[in-house]
Amino acid sequence: MSKGKFIVIEGLEGAGKTTARDTIVAELNAKGITDIVFTREPGGTPLAEKLRELVKQGIGDEVLTDKAELLMMYTSRVQLVENVMKPALARGAWVIGDRHDLSSQAYQGGGRGIDNQLMTALRDTVLGDFHPDLTLYLDVLPEKGLERARARGELDRIEKESLAFFERTRQRYLELAQSDNSIITIDASQSLAKVTADIQTTMRQWLLENVK
Amino acid sequence: MSKGKFIVIEGLEGAGKTTARDTIVAELNAKGITDIVFTREPGGTPLAEKLRELVKQGIGDEVLTDKAELLMMYTSRVQLVENVMKPALARGAWVIGDRHDLSSQAYQGGGRGIDNQLMTALRDTVLGDFHPDLTLYLDVLPEKGLERARARGELDRIEKESLAFFERTRQRYLELAQSDNSIITIDASQSLAKVTADIQTTMRQWLLENVK
Ligand SMILES: Nc1ncnc2c1ncn2[C@@H]1O[C@H](COP(=O)(O)OP(=O)(O)OP(=O)(O)O)[C@@H](O)[C@H]1O
Ligand SMILES: Nc1ncnc2c1ncn2[C@@H]1O[C@H](COP(=O)(O)OP(=O)(O)OP(=O)(O)O)[C@@H](O)[C@H]1O
Ligand SMILES: [Mg+2]
Ligand SMILES: [Mg+2]
Repeated sequence: MSKGKFIVIEGLEGAGKTTARDTIVAELNAKGITDIVFTREPGGTPLAEKLRELVKQGIGDEVLTDKAELLMMYTSRVQLVENVMKPALARGAWVIGDRHDLSSQAYQGGGRGIDNQLMTALRDTVLGDFHPDLTLYLDVLPEKGLERARARGELDRIEKESLAFFERTRQRYLELAQSDNSIITIDASQSLAKVTADIQTTMRQWLLENVK
Repeated sequence: MSKGKFIVIEGLEGAGKTTARDTIVAELNAKGITDIVFTREPGGTPLAEKLRELVKQGIGDEVLTDKAELLMMYTSRVQLVENVMKPALARGAWVIGDRHDLSSQAYQGGGRGIDNQLMTALRDTVLGDFHPDLTLYLDVLPEKGLERARARGELDRIEKESLAFFERTRQRYLELAQSDNSIITIDASQSLAKVTADIQTTMRQWLLENVK
Protein backbone atom coordinates (compact mmCIF):
# COMPACT_ATOMS: atom_id res chain seq x y z
CA MET A 1 0.00 0.00 0.00
CA SER A 2 1.34 3.45 -0.92
CA LYS A 3 1.59 6.04 1.86
CA GLY A 4 -1.27 8.52 2.30
CA LYS A 5 -1.03 11.91 0.63
CA PHE A 6 -2.28 15.35 1.59
CA ILE A 7 -4.31 17.30 -0.99
CA VAL A 8 -5.51 20.83 -0.29
CA ILE A 9 -8.22 22.86 -2.03
CA GLU A 10 -7.71 26.61 -1.85
CA GLY A 11 -9.39 29.77 -3.08
CA LEU A 12 -11.50 32.79 -2.16
CA GLU A 13 -15.03 32.54 -0.71
CA GLY A 14 -17.39 30.97 -3.22
CA ALA A 15 -14.55 29.80 -5.45
CA GLY A 16 -16.05 26.32 -5.37
CA LYS A 17 -13.77 24.55 -2.86
CA THR A 18 -16.41 22.49 -1.11
CA THR A 19 -17.98 21.60 -4.46
CA ALA A 20 -14.58 20.50 -5.82
CA ARG A 21 -14.10 18.01 -3.01
CA ASP A 22 -16.57 15.50 -4.44
CA THR A 23 -14.79 15.56 -7.80
CA ILE A 24 -11.45 14.82 -6.14
CA VAL A 25 -12.94 12.02 -4.04
CA ALA A 26 -14.42 10.38 -7.14
CA GLU A 27 -10.98 10.40 -8.81
CA LEU A 28 -9.33 8.91 -5.72
CA ASN A 29 -12.01 6.23 -5.44
CA ALA A 30 -11.50 5.33 -9.11
CA LYS A 31 -7.87 4.62 -8.17
CA GLY A 32 -9.00 2.40 -5.29
CA ILE A 33 -8.20 5.00 -2.65
CA THR A 34 -11.05 4.97 -0.15
CA ASP A 35 -9.50 5.71 3.26
CA ILE A 36 -9.86 9.48 3.12
CA VAL A 37 -9.99 11.98 5.99
CA PHE A 38 -11.68 15.34 5.31
CA THR A 39 -10.58 18.49 7.10
CA ARG A 40 -11.52 22.13 6.92
CA GLU A 41 -9.62 25.11 8.28
CA PRO A 42 -9.90 26.76 10.61
CA GLY A 43 -11.47 23.85 12.50
CA GLY A 44 -11.33 20.08 12.76
CA THR A 45 -10.76 19.51 16.49
CA PRO A 46 -13.04 20.62 19.35
CA LEU A 47 -10.70 23.52 20.20
CA ALA A 48 -10.16 24.44 16.55
CA GLU A 49 -13.92 24.51 15.92
CA LYS A 50 -14.36 26.85 18.91
CA LEU A 51 -11.70 29.12 17.41
CA ARG A 52 -13.37 28.92 13.97
CA GLU A 53 -16.60 30.13 15.50
CA LEU A 54 -14.82 33.00 17.31
CA VAL A 55 -12.95 34.06 14.16
CA LYS A 56 -16.00 33.87 11.91
CA GLN A 57 -18.56 35.44 14.24
CA GLY A 58 -16.32 37.67 16.39
CA ILE A 59 -17.15 38.14 20.06
CA GLY A 60 -19.61 40.90 20.96
CA ASP A 61 -18.21 44.24 19.86
CA GLU A 62 -14.61 43.45 20.82
CA VAL A 63 -12.25 44.51 18.04
CA LEU A 64 -10.39 41.41 16.82
CA THR A 65 -6.87 42.57 15.93
CA ASP A 66 -5.24 41.22 12.76
CA LYS A 67 -2.54 39.52 14.80
CA ALA A 68 -5.05 37.79 17.09
CA GLU A 69 -6.87 36.52 13.97
CA LEU A 70 -3.60 35.15 12.58
CA LEU A 71 -2.62 33.51 15.89
CA MET A 72 -6.03 31.86 16.18
CA MET A 73 -5.64 30.43 12.68
CA TYR A 74 -2.31 28.90 13.65
CA THR A 75 -3.61 27.65 17.00
CA SER A 76 -6.34 25.85 15.09
CA ARG A 77 -3.82 24.56 12.52
CA VAL A 78 -1.30 23.18 14.98
CA GLN A 79 -4.03 21.28 16.81
CA LEU A 80 -5.39 19.87 13.54
CA VAL A 81 -1.99 18.95 12.10
CA GLU A 82 -0.69 17.25 15.25
CA ASN A 83 -3.87 15.57 16.46
CA VAL A 84 -5.63 14.68 13.19
CA MET A 85 -3.59 15.05 9.99
CA LYS A 86 -0.26 13.51 10.98
CA PRO A 87 -1.89 10.47 12.65
CA ALA A 88 -4.16 9.94 9.61
CA LEU A 89 -1.28 10.14 7.11
CA ALA A 90 0.87 7.92 9.33
CA ARG A 91 -1.69 5.11 9.22
CA GLY A 92 -1.85 5.43 5.40
CA ALA A 93 -5.06 7.45 4.98
CA TRP A 94 -5.30 10.31 2.49
CA VAL A 95 -6.24 13.75 3.75
CA ILE A 96 -8.26 16.26 1.73
CA GLY A 97 -8.14 19.72 3.25
CA ASP A 98 -10.66 22.49 2.58
CA ARG A 99 -8.09 25.30 3.05
CA HIS A 100 -4.73 25.00 4.85
CA ASP A 101 -1.65 27.18 5.37
CA LEU A 102 -1.88 28.90 1.98
CA SER A 103 -5.10 30.56 3.19
CA SER A 104 -3.19 32.22 6.04
CA GLN A 105 -0.43 33.31 3.67
CA ALA A 106 -3.03 34.83 1.33
CA TYR A 107 -5.63 36.26 3.76
CA GLN A 108 -3.55 37.26 6.78
CA GLY A 109 -0.28 37.85 4.92
CA GLY A 110 -1.67 39.35 1.69
CA GLY A 111 -5.12 40.62 2.69
CA ARG A 112 -4.30 41.95 6.16
CA GLY A 113 -0.68 42.81 5.32
CA ILE A 114 0.87 41.17 8.38
CA ASP A 115 4.65 41.46 8.35
CA ASN A 116 6.75 38.60 7.05
CA GLN A 117 8.82 37.94 10.18
CA LEU A 118 5.76 36.66 12.03
CA MET A 119 4.30 34.83 9.01
CA THR A 120 7.58 33.01 8.42
CA ALA A 121 8.23 32.17 12.07
CA LEU A 122 4.74 30.74 12.46
CA ARG A 123 4.90 28.65 9.33
CA ASP A 124 8.41 27.38 10.04
CA THR A 125 7.90 26.50 13.67
CA VAL A 126 4.29 25.32 13.56
CA LEU A 127 4.55 23.30 10.34
CA GLY A 128 8.25 22.56 9.90
CA ASP A 129 8.48 20.44 6.75
CA PHE A 130 4.82 19.38 6.86
CA HIS A 131 3.54 20.43 3.43
CA PRO A 132 0.66 19.38 1.13
CA ASP A 133 1.57 16.98 -1.68
CA LEU A 134 -0.80 18.83 -4.00
CA THR A 135 -2.79 22.06 -3.77
CA LEU A 136 -5.56 22.94 -6.20
CA TYR A 137 -5.98 26.70 -6.16
CA LEU A 138 -9.38 27.67 -7.55
CA ASP A 139 -8.87 31.13 -8.97
CA VAL A 140 -11.89 33.40 -9.21
CA LEU A 141 -12.46 37.17 -9.23
CA PRO A 142 -13.53 38.32 -5.75
CA GLU A 143 -16.80 39.82 -7.05
CA LYS A 144 -17.76 36.56 -8.67
CA GLY A 145 -16.91 34.36 -5.69
CA LEU A 146 -18.67 36.66 -3.23
CA GLU A 147 -21.75 36.71 -5.45
CA ARG A 148 -21.87 32.90 -5.30
CA ALA A 149 -21.25 32.88 -1.54
CA ARG A 150 -23.93 35.53 -1.01
CA ALA A 151 -26.46 33.50 -2.99
CA ARG A 152 -25.77 30.69 -0.53
CA GLY A 153 -26.59 32.71 2.61
CA GLU A 154 -25.48 35.29 5.21
CA LEU A 155 -21.88 36.51 5.03
CA ASP A 156 -19.62 36.04 8.10
CA ARG A 157 -17.10 38.51 9.64
CA ILE A 158 -14.37 37.79 7.08
CA GLU A 159 -16.71 37.53 4.09
CA LYS A 160 -17.89 41.08 4.91
CA GLU A 161 -14.41 42.49 4.18
CA SER A 162 -13.89 45.03 1.39
CA LEU A 163 -13.31 44.05 -2.23
CA ALA A 164 -9.80 45.58 -1.91
CA PHE A 165 -9.04 43.08 0.88
CA PHE A 166 -10.02 40.15 -1.35
CA GLU A 167 -8.08 41.58 -4.26
CA ARG A 168 -4.92 41.70 -2.13
CA THR A 169 -5.67 38.15 -0.98
CA ARG A 170 -6.09 36.93 -4.57
CA GLN A 171 -2.84 38.62 -5.66
CA ARG A 172 -0.95 36.80 -2.89
CA TYR A 173 -2.60 33.50 -3.89
CA LEU A 174 -1.50 34.02 -7.52
CA GLU A 175 2.06 34.94 -6.53
CA LEU A 176 2.43 31.94 -4.25
CA ALA A 177 0.87 29.55 -6.79
CA GLN A 178 3.41 30.73 -9.36
CA SER A 179 6.38 30.13 -7.08
CA ASP A 180 5.42 26.65 -5.84
CA ASN A 181 5.34 23.60 -8.14
CA SER A 182 2.96 21.70 -5.87
CA ILE A 183 0.21 24.29 -6.43
CA ILE A 184 -1.94 23.96 -9.57
CA THR A 185 -4.20 26.86 -10.53
CA ILE A 186 -7.68 26.08 -11.86
CA ASP A 187 -9.74 28.78 -13.58
CA ALA A 188 -12.78 28.68 -11.31
CA SER A 189 -14.64 31.51 -13.04
CA GLN A 190 -15.77 29.00 -15.68
CA SER A 191 -19.04 27.06 -15.55
CA LEU A 192 -19.27 24.36 -12.89
CA ALA A 193 -19.14 21.67 -15.61
CA LYS A 194 -15.92 23.13 -17.04
CA VAL A 195 -14.30 23.56 -13.60
CA THR A 196 -15.20 19.97 -12.74
CA ALA A 197 -13.70 18.73 -16.01
CA ASP A 198 -10.47 20.67 -15.35
CA ILE A 199 -10.19 19.20 -11.85
CA GLN A 200 -10.74 15.69 -13.24
CA THR A 201 -8.03 16.13 -15.87
CA THR A 202 -5.61 17.58 -13.33
CA MET A 203 -6.26 14.84 -10.77
CA ARG A 204 -5.90 12.02 -13.32
CA GLN A 205 -2.59 13.36 -14.55
CA TRP A 206 -1.28 13.94 -11.03
CA LEU A 207 -2.38 10.51 -9.78
CA LEU A 208 -0.72 8.89 -12.77
CA GLU A 209 2.56 10.60 -11.90
CA ASN A 210 2.35 10.30 -8.14
CA VAL A 211 0.63 7.03 -7.27
CA LYS A 212 2.11 3.71 -8.26
CA MET B 1 0.01 65.16 35.32
CA SER B 2 2.73 62.54 34.70
CA LYS B 3 2.04 59.82 32.11
CA GLY B 4 0.70 56.46 33.29
CA LYS B 5 3.11 53.61 33.94
CA PHE B 6 2.84 49.85 33.56
CA ILE B 7 3.82 47.69 36.54
CA VAL B 8 3.79 43.89 36.30
CA ILE B 9 3.80 41.31 39.08
CA GLU B 10 5.34 37.98 38.10
CA GLY B 11 6.13 34.62 39.68
CA LEU B 12 5.16 30.96 39.95
CA GLU B 13 1.74 29.75 41.17
CA GLY B 14 1.21 30.72 44.79
CA ALA B 15 4.18 33.11 44.79
CA GLY B 16 1.87 35.78 46.17
CA LYS B 17 1.18 37.87 43.05
CA THR B 18 -2.46 38.63 43.74
CA THR B 19 -1.65 39.35 47.40
CA ALA B 20 1.13 41.76 46.37
CA ARG B 21 -1.23 43.85 44.30
CA ASP B 22 -2.85 45.52 47.32
CA THR B 23 0.55 46.53 48.67
CA ILE B 24 1.47 48.17 45.36
CA VAL B 25 -1.87 49.95 45.13
CA ALA B 26 -1.44 51.37 48.65
CA GLU B 27 1.97 52.79 47.67
CA LEU B 28 0.57 54.34 44.49
CA ASN B 29 -2.36 55.83 46.39
CA ALA B 30 0.06 57.34 48.92
CA LYS B 31 1.65 59.15 45.97
CA GLY B 32 -1.76 60.42 44.84
CA ILE B 33 -2.02 57.93 41.97
CA THR B 34 -5.60 56.63 41.95
CA ASP B 35 -6.49 56.04 38.28
CA ILE B 36 -5.33 52.42 38.12
CA VAL B 37 -6.39 49.67 35.70
CA PHE B 38 -5.92 46.07 36.83
CA THR B 39 -5.24 43.30 34.35
CA ARG B 40 -4.48 39.60 34.60
CA GLU B 41 -3.03 37.35 31.93
CA PRO B 42 -4.17 35.39 30.14
CA GLY B 43 -7.45 37.30 30.16
CA GLY B 44 -8.85 40.79 30.37
CA THR B 45 -11.09 41.04 27.29
CA PRO B 46 -14.10 38.82 26.45
CA LEU B 47 -12.05 36.83 23.90
CA ALA B 48 -9.00 36.66 26.18
CA GLU B 49 -11.11 35.37 29.07
CA LYS B 50 -12.52 32.63 26.81
CA LEU B 51 -8.97 31.66 25.89
CA ARG B 52 -7.93 31.73 29.58
CA GLU B 53 -10.70 29.26 30.36
CA LEU B 54 -9.65 26.98 27.45
CA VAL B 55 -5.97 27.08 28.46
CA LYS B 56 -6.66 26.50 32.16
CA GLN B 57 -9.35 23.83 31.85
CA GLY B 58 -8.45 22.27 28.49
CA ILE B 59 -11.21 21.04 26.21
CA GLY B 60 -12.48 17.49 26.76
CA ASP B 61 -9.65 15.02 26.24
CA GLU B 62 -8.11 16.91 23.29
CA VAL B 63 -4.34 17.13 23.72
CA LEU B 64 -3.38 20.82 23.84
CA THR B 65 -0.02 21.09 22.06
CA ASP B 66 2.67 23.33 23.57
CA LYS B 67 2.58 25.58 20.52
CA ALA B 68 -1.20 26.00 20.66
CA GLU B 69 -0.87 26.96 24.34
CA LEU B 70 1.76 29.57 23.45
CA LEU B 71 -0.29 30.98 20.57
CA MET B 72 -3.36 31.28 22.77
CA MET B 73 -1.32 33.21 25.35
CA TYR B 74 -0.24 35.68 22.66
CA THR B 75 -3.72 35.92 21.16
CA SER B 76 -4.97 36.89 24.60
CA ARG B 77 -2.05 39.29 25.09
CA VAL B 78 -2.42 41.14 21.79
CA GLN B 79 -6.12 41.71 22.45
CA LEU B 80 -5.42 42.97 25.98
CA VAL B 81 -2.50 45.21 24.99
CA GLU B 82 -4.25 46.82 22.00
CA ASN B 83 -7.78 47.10 23.38
CA VAL B 84 -7.16 47.76 27.10
CA MET B 85 -3.59 48.56 28.13
CA LYS B 86 -2.51 51.00 25.44
CA PRO B 87 -5.76 53.03 25.66
CA ALA B 88 -5.51 53.13 29.49
CA LEU B 89 -1.88 54.29 29.46
CA ALA B 90 -2.64 56.81 26.71
CA ARG B 91 -5.27 58.53 28.85
CA GLY B 92 -2.80 58.68 31.76
CA ALA B 93 -3.99 55.76 33.88
CA TRP B 94 -1.54 53.36 35.52
CA VAL B 95 -1.79 49.66 34.71
CA ILE B 96 -0.97 46.90 37.20
CA GLY B 97 -0.65 43.52 35.49
CA ASP B 98 -0.97 40.16 37.25
CA ARG B 99 1.46 38.41 34.84
CA HIS B 100 2.47 39.62 31.37
CA ASP B 101 4.97 38.62 28.69
CA LEU B 102 7.62 37.40 31.15
CA SER B 103 5.24 34.56 32.09
CA SER B 104 5.27 33.31 28.49
CA GLN B 105 9.05 33.60 28.33
CA ALA B 106 9.35 31.59 31.57
CA TYR B 107 6.51 29.03 31.23
CA GLN B 108 6.31 28.41 27.48
CA GLY B 109 9.94 29.27 26.67
CA GLY B 110 11.62 27.84 29.79
CA GLY B 111 9.08 25.29 31.10
CA ARG B 112 7.86 23.89 27.78
CA GLY B 113 11.14 24.47 25.96
CA ILE B 114 9.64 26.13 22.89
CA ASP B 115 12.31 27.21 20.42
CA ASN B 116 13.57 30.75 20.42
CA GLN B 117 12.70 31.68 16.82
CA LEU B 118 8.99 31.54 17.59
CA MET B 119 9.33 33.12 21.05
CA THR B 120 11.29 36.05 19.62
CA ALA B 121 9.07 36.57 16.58
CA LEU B 122 5.94 36.60 18.74
CA ARG B 123 7.36 39.02 21.27
CA ASP B 124 8.83 41.34 18.63
CA THR B 125 5.82 41.49 16.37
CA VAL B 126 3.04 41.32 18.96
CA LEU B 127 4.59 43.70 21.48
CA GLY B 128 7.12 45.76 19.50
CA ASP B 129 8.57 48.23 22.01
CA PHE B 130 5.65 47.91 24.44
CA HIS B 131 7.37 46.97 27.70
CA PRO B 132 6.54 47.23 31.44
CA ASP B 133 8.14 50.14 33.29
CA LEU B 134 8.68 47.91 36.31
CA THR B 135 8.32 44.19 36.97
CA LEU B 136 8.33 42.72 40.48
CA TYR B 137 9.35 39.08 40.20
CA LEU B 138 8.28 37.17 43.33
CA ASP B 139 10.76 34.34 43.57
CA VAL B 140 9.67 31.21 45.39
CA LEU B 141 10.62 27.51 45.27
CA PRO B 142 8.05 25.61 43.18
CA GLU B 143 7.22 23.23 46.07
CA LYS B 144 6.47 26.14 48.35
CA GLY B 145 4.35 28.08 45.86
CA LEU B 146 2.36 25.00 44.83
CA GLU B 147 1.73 24.17 48.49
CA ARG B 148 0.21 27.64 48.98
CA ALA B 149 -1.81 27.37 45.75
CA ARG B 150 -3.04 23.90 46.75
CA ALA B 151 -4.19 25.15 50.15
CA ARG B 152 -6.32 27.67 48.24
CA GLY B 153 -8.21 25.07 46.14
CA GLU B 154 -8.22 22.71 43.13
CA LEU B 155 -5.23 22.90 40.75
CA ASP B 156 -5.85 23.72 37.06
CA ARG B 157 -4.27 22.11 33.95
CA ILE B 158 -1.02 24.07 34.19
CA GLU B 159 -0.77 23.90 37.98
CA LYS B 160 -0.83 20.09 37.66
CA GLU B 161 2.49 20.11 35.75
CA SER B 162 5.54 18.30 37.17
CA LEU B 163 7.93 19.90 39.64
CA ALA B 164 10.64 19.68 36.92
CA PHE B 165 8.47 21.88 34.67
CA PHE B 166 8.22 24.56 37.37
CA GLU B 167 11.93 24.31 38.10
CA ARG B 168 12.72 25.02 34.44
CA THR B 169 10.23 27.89 34.56
CA ARG B 170 11.84 29.35 37.70
CA GLN B 171 15.32 29.08 36.16
CA ARG B 172 14.18 31.06 33.13
CA TYR B 173 12.55 33.67 35.38
CA LEU B 174 15.81 34.06 37.32
CA GLU B 175 17.92 34.32 34.14
CA LEU B 176 15.64 36.94 32.61
CA ALA B 177 15.39 38.92 35.86
CA GLN B 178 19.18 39.08 35.98
CA SER B 179 19.50 40.37 32.42
CA ASP B 180 16.82 43.10 32.60
CA ASN B 181 17.19 46.20 34.80
CA SER B 182 13.46 46.82 34.89
CA ILE B 183 12.85 43.53 36.74
CA ILE B 184 13.32 43.51 40.53
CA THR B 185 13.43 40.14 42.31
CA ILE B 186 11.67 39.83 45.67
CA ASP B 187 12.33 36.83 47.93
CA ALA B 188 8.77 35.55 48.20
CA SER B 189 9.62 32.51 50.31
CA GLN B 190 9.69 34.78 53.37
CA SER B 191 6.71 35.41 55.65
CA LEU B 192 3.90 37.47 54.18
CA ALA B 193 4.80 40.38 56.50
CA LYS B 194 8.42 40.35 55.30
CA VAL B 195 7.44 40.07 51.61
CA THR B 196 5.03 42.96 52.04
CA ALA B 197 7.72 45.07 53.70
CA ASP B 198 10.15 44.32 50.84
CA ILE B 199 7.57 45.31 48.24
CA GLN B 200 6.86 48.55 50.12
CA THR B 201 10.55 49.45 50.27
CA THR B 202 11.05 48.62 46.60
CA MET B 203 8.00 50.59 45.47
CA ARG B 204 8.89 53.67 47.56
CA GLN B 205 12.41 53.76 46.15
CA TRP B 206 11.21 53.21 42.58
CA LEU B 207 8.45 55.84 42.81
CA LEU B 208 10.95 58.33 44.23
CA GLU B 209 13.21 57.78 41.22
CA ASN B 210 10.52 57.50 38.56
CA VAL B 211 7.64 59.78 39.47
CA LYS B 212 8.12 63.49 39.74
N1 LIG C 1 -18.02 27.12 -11.25
C1 LIG C 1 -19.16 27.50 -10.66
N2 LIG C 1 -20.09 28.22 -11.30
C2 LIG C 1 -21.21 28.62 -10.69
N3 LIG C 1 -21.52 28.34 -9.40
C3 LIG C 1 -20.62 27.61 -8.70
C4 LIG C 1 -19.40 27.16 -9.28
N4 LIG C 1 -18.69 26.49 -8.32
C5 LIG C 1 -19.46 26.52 -7.19
N5 LIG C 1 -20.62 27.18 -7.44
C6 LIG C 1 -21.68 27.47 -6.46
O1 LIG C 1 -21.21 28.57 -5.70
C7 LIG C 1 -21.52 28.40 -4.33
C8 LIG C 1 -20.21 28.39 -3.52
O2 LIG C 1 -19.48 27.18 -3.83
P1 LIG C 1 -18.69 26.43 -2.68
O3 LIG C 1 -19.50 26.37 -1.43
O4 LIG C 1 -18.18 25.16 -3.25
O5 LIG C 1 -17.51 27.47 -2.52
P2 LIG C 1 -16.42 27.50 -1.42
O6 LIG C 1 -15.15 27.87 -2.10
O7 LIG C 1 -16.43 26.23 -0.63
O8 LIG C 1 -16.90 28.71 -0.52
P3 LIG C 1 -16.50 29.03 1.02
O9 LIG C 1 -15.12 29.57 0.98
O10 LIG C 1 -17.50 30.06 1.41
O11 LIG C 1 -16.63 27.73 1.76
C9 LIG C 1 -22.29 27.09 -4.21
O12 LIG C 1 -23.65 27.40 -4.18
C10 LIG C 1 -21.89 26.35 -5.47
O13 LIG C 1 -22.90 25.47 -5.92
N1 LIG D 1 4.64 35.16 51.75
C1 LIG D 1 3.61 34.33 51.96
N2 LIG D 1 3.66 33.43 52.97
C2 LIG D 1 2.63 32.58 53.18
N3 LIG D 1 1.52 32.56 52.44
C3 LIG D 1 1.41 33.44 51.43
C4 LIG D 1 2.45 34.38 51.12
N4 LIG D 1 2.07 35.12 50.05
C5 LIG D 1 0.84 34.67 49.70
N5 LIG D 1 0.44 33.67 50.54
C6 LIG D 1 -0.79 32.91 50.45
O1 LIG D 1 -0.59 31.94 49.43
C7 LIG D 1 -1.74 31.82 48.62
C8 LIG D 1 -1.39 32.18 47.19
O2 LIG D 1 -1.12 33.58 47.12
P1 LIG D 1 -1.60 34.40 45.85
O3 LIG D 1 -2.98 34.01 45.42
O4 LIG D 1 -1.33 35.84 46.09
O5 LIG D 1 -0.55 33.84 44.82
P2 LIG D 1 -0.51 34.04 43.26
O6 LIG D 1 0.92 34.24 42.93
O7 LIG D 1 -1.47 35.11 42.87
O8 LIG D 1 -1.00 32.64 42.75
P3 LIG D 1 -1.62 32.27 41.31
O9 LIG D 1 -0.47 32.23 40.36
O10 LIG D 1 -2.19 30.90 41.51
O11 LIG D 1 -2.63 33.33 41.00
C9 LIG D 1 -2.80 32.72 49.22
O12 LIG D 1 -3.62 31.96 50.05
C10 LIG D 1 -1.98 33.73 50.00
O13 LIG D 1 -2.68 34.26 51.13
MG1 LIG E 1 -16.62 25.85 1.41
MG1 LIG F 1 -3.06 35.11 41.53
